[in-house]
Amino acid sequence: MTAAPPARLLQALRDALGAAAVLTDPDMTEGYAGDMMPLAPRGRPLAVVLPVDTAQVRACVRACAEAGTPIVPRGAGSGLTGAANAVDGCVVLVTTRMNRILELDLDNRLAVVEPGVVNQDLRKAAARHGLFYPPDPSSLDWCTLGGNLATNAGGLCCGKYGVTADAVLGLEAVLADGSLLRTGRRTVKGVAGYDLTRLFVGSEGTLGVITRATLALKPLPAAPGTLIASFDAVQQAGDAVIRVVREGLVPSLMEIMDATSLRASAAYLDTDLGGAGQQALLLCQSDSGGAAADCELAAMERLCQEAGATFTHTTRDPAEGDLLLRARRVSLTALEAQGAVMTEDVAVPRTRIAELIAGCEKIGAAAGLTVAVVGHAGDGNMHPTVLYDRTSADEFRRAGEAFDAILALGLSLGGTVTGEHGIGKLKQEWLERELGPVAMRVHRQLKAALDPGNLFNPGAVFSPAEAGHDTP
Amino acid sequence: MTAAPPARLLQALRDALGAAAVLTDPDMTEGYAGDMMPLAPRGRPLAVVLPVDTAQVRACVRACAEAGTPIVPRGAGSGLTGAANAVDGCVVLVTTRMNRILELDLDNRLAVVEPGVVNQDLRKAAARHGLFYPPDPSSLDWCTLGGNLATNAGGLCCGKYGVTADAVLGLEAVLADGSLLRTGRRTVKGVAGYDLTRLFVGSEGTLGVITRATLALKPLPAAPGTLIASFDAVQQAGDAVIRVVREGLVPSLMEIMDATSLRASAAYLDTDLGGAGQQALLLCQSDSGGAAADCELAAMERLCQEAGATFTHTTRDPAEGDLLLRARRVSLTALEAQGAVMTEDVAVPRTRIAELIAGCEKIGAAAGLTVAVVGHAGDGNMHPTVLYDRTSADEFRRAGEAFDAILALGLSLGGTVTGEHGIGKLKQEWLERELGPVAMRVHRQLKAALDPGNLFNPGAVFSPAEAGHDTP
Repeated sequence: MTAAPPARLLQALRDALGAAAVLTDPDMTEGYAGDMMPLAPRGRPLAVVLPVDTAQVRACVRACAEAGTPIVPRGAGSGLTGAANAVDGCVVLVTTRMNRILELDLDNRLAVVEPGVVNQDLRKAAARHGLFYPPDPSSLDWCTLGGNLATNAGGLCCGKYGVTADAVLGLEAVLADGSLLRTGRRTVKGVAGYDLTRLFVGSEGTLGVITRATLALKPLPAAPGTLIASFDAVQQAGDAVIRVVREGLVPSLMEIMDATSLRASAAYLDTDLGGAGQQALLLCQSDSGGAAADCELAAMERLCQEAGATFTHTTRDPAEGDLLLRARRVSLTALEAQGAVMTEDVAVPRTRIAELIAGCEKIGAAAGLTVAVVGHAGDGNMHPTVLYDRTSADEFRRAGEAFDAILALGLSLGGTVTGEHGIGKLKQEWLERELGPVAMRVHRQLKAALDPGNLFNPGAVFSPAEAGHDTP
Repeated sequence: MTAAPPARLLQALRDALGAAAVLTDPDMTEGYAGDMMPLAPRGRPLAVVLPVDTAQVRACVRACAEAGTPIVPRGAGSGLTGAANAVDGCVVLVTTRMNRILELDLDNRLAVVEPGVVNQDLRKAAARHGLFYPPDPSSLDWCTLGGNLATNAGGLCCGKYGVTADAVLGLEAVLADGSLLRTGRRTVKGVAGYDLTRLFVGSEGTLGVITRATLALKPLPAAPGTLIASFDAVQQAGDAVIRVVREGLVPSLMEIMDATSLRASAAYLDTDLGGAGQQALLLCQSDSGGAAADCELAAMERLCQEAGATFTHTTRDPAEGDLLLRARRVSLTALEAQGAVMTEDVAVPRTRIAELIAGCEKIGAAAGLTVAVVGHAGDGNMHPTVLYDRTSADEFRRAGEAFDAILALGLSLGGTVTGEHGIGKLKQEWLERELGPVAMRVHRQLKAALDPGNLFNPGAVFSPAEAGHDTP
């Protein structure tokens, strides 16, 4: 790359956004060059831009398109696949300054937001009016809705309330030529044309920059009641999950922890979490309120006992419930306290959870490493986490092999290589393996149709054109 | 078109499907040339083919692609926009013989089906195991799931349970080159790549032929309790809807009927439906069961009374509930008994329902015609129906003008021109008006990427390329 075009591009960006919103000092841009997944490749950006409105985003896109400089859109950077990682010489477009809740329509139960709004800020604003924005990724206190939309983020609530995509009514996005696309609607239902909204949600910034979203809200549910159940065998906990689903119950939360993650959380919290021998813990909640919650919790407790639980405890006290959930909430932090981690995101049919956990234990043993499993049992989305010593190149290699073996296991159980984190710059070969050549060709055709110059987030999700593939 | 290519194509189709599955006699093909919307244009097909499996669909697509002959896919033909109407010289591909429920996975609450399965057949099969397939278009006893998928069909349940798209986990579809695309997954969650499933759902057969679907099932809800409420003014009924939504209630059904439709149903059923003076009727159900249903029904009754209802009645007896719902269920038949009808499908924000109904009355008065309104108040999807004398060209013209005026009114209220029926070959100009030029350009780019030869359902939803538009 010659010096002149970047200089012209930088000047155009400064003219459009003001000099203070265009960062080029590597000490400053470094902080915007990657997300929370250290294993994914990350490059050095030419610049980081912080637009404050849609007009500035459009100006950035036009300037970059003219210069042929790729754009990597990002929010807060809480992602776990490197989807927001910079590529060399790119412009990182940060949406965190576009952080207004533009509208809360209580009577139609919807919100209109800019992409930089922090997930929890919308949750709190909605809750003040008795409304509920369900998607609750673990990073909800700092991740942005734009990032949630780009990755179709999940969370703990998904078994009952769905993922981010299920809460989106419409979007506004800037396309590769700088034009502004509006998708969807404000109505509950609508079938006018292709579902462009869902095409953009989860596309990880490869098709455009989302600058606004219309989100559906739900009535705020009752404070949850909580059940915990301990098991002497993972298979029994898996059986309990199957029984809960078969009984027609839809818990508002159903998390599973294996023995390794339980030990890590117990050590971190300095408590025994109810016994040294337990091999698995199920944490279940009902937010149905009143007698309905009593019924659901009692039914789940009975089913856990029938599946062989050695200990169960139910509480309707939300504070006690929070306390019980702490073991799950701190699990990743607790594991990180023991060493470096690679966190997986496979989702399997709910009937295969126990097999996945047992398989992860075997994979860990074969690799000579610890693999801990926690996950969203209510929807089958598991987060096996491989522990390794970051100072050992050999352990790092074996951890990577175990990581791959877990993905292969997930696929072999009828699952997917990513339940909620996405593909990013980490799992592209696995996407090809999961989807096969026809679906990958369709991906490339769609990308070529909407972003022929490969302006947006090149290197994320898939390579637009590959040797041997014709891209029209 | 010369004679030779059709002959070669017909031979290829007969070779692939057997002669009995390739209809060319106009007396027989006529029955497959259109759906239930007489106003949309329909052509004369070259042939109608009835494949029995995916391999036969692929053979048909390849043969038609080679001959340059368009394919119009269809199910039972219950559509209301001409989406499945033949174009001259096309091959109509009927999926009704592909009608197997391939799998009911009770533990993972999902079904795998062929496109020709009748909606109600899946509902019944699922219900035998305590499971529920929610989407319930009015034609559920004869419409097929393939058509439901192609149009993203709705129904009465949508306010609580969503539309067809919300029940789809994955698809198999034959693309324009005959290749077989598999989208989605069997897991509850998954974010591997673009949401191709949702791109195909609602695309009205313009991107490929859906040959298989994996559908999510829900636990079968309790038998519904029913509330009816009469109002002296439409505004009061609209106010009751707003109060129900604001209270955080999610009725499993909430239908509205205006005075005209009430009179028509009363005449058809030969009953007074609770009084001559009523201007609007709300029908609400709760399927939450037990005390929860009692609570919901009592709250809705109170809110209706606070909004000014002159009469309310609640029953937990499902048979009585069915009887109360009859007025709504027969409404279109009752209107058809009075003359020819044009049925609309606008959806508006739930706060604007009363304005829409009042506006429809004005539009009817201005046109010198009767406009009756029934609709799904729970999601704002209204079906204003224009009555006219089919023997009068002048009335037909005025009815068409009223139809257009209702669409314009729906858009002006922040709504969409189609809540659940689709665009088909009826509302293409209105799609452009609703979506605007950027979204239309994106539609054309996507269509060109996946079906560059315009093989699938040409003339439906939008014109692939228009004068003044560059299609890449």
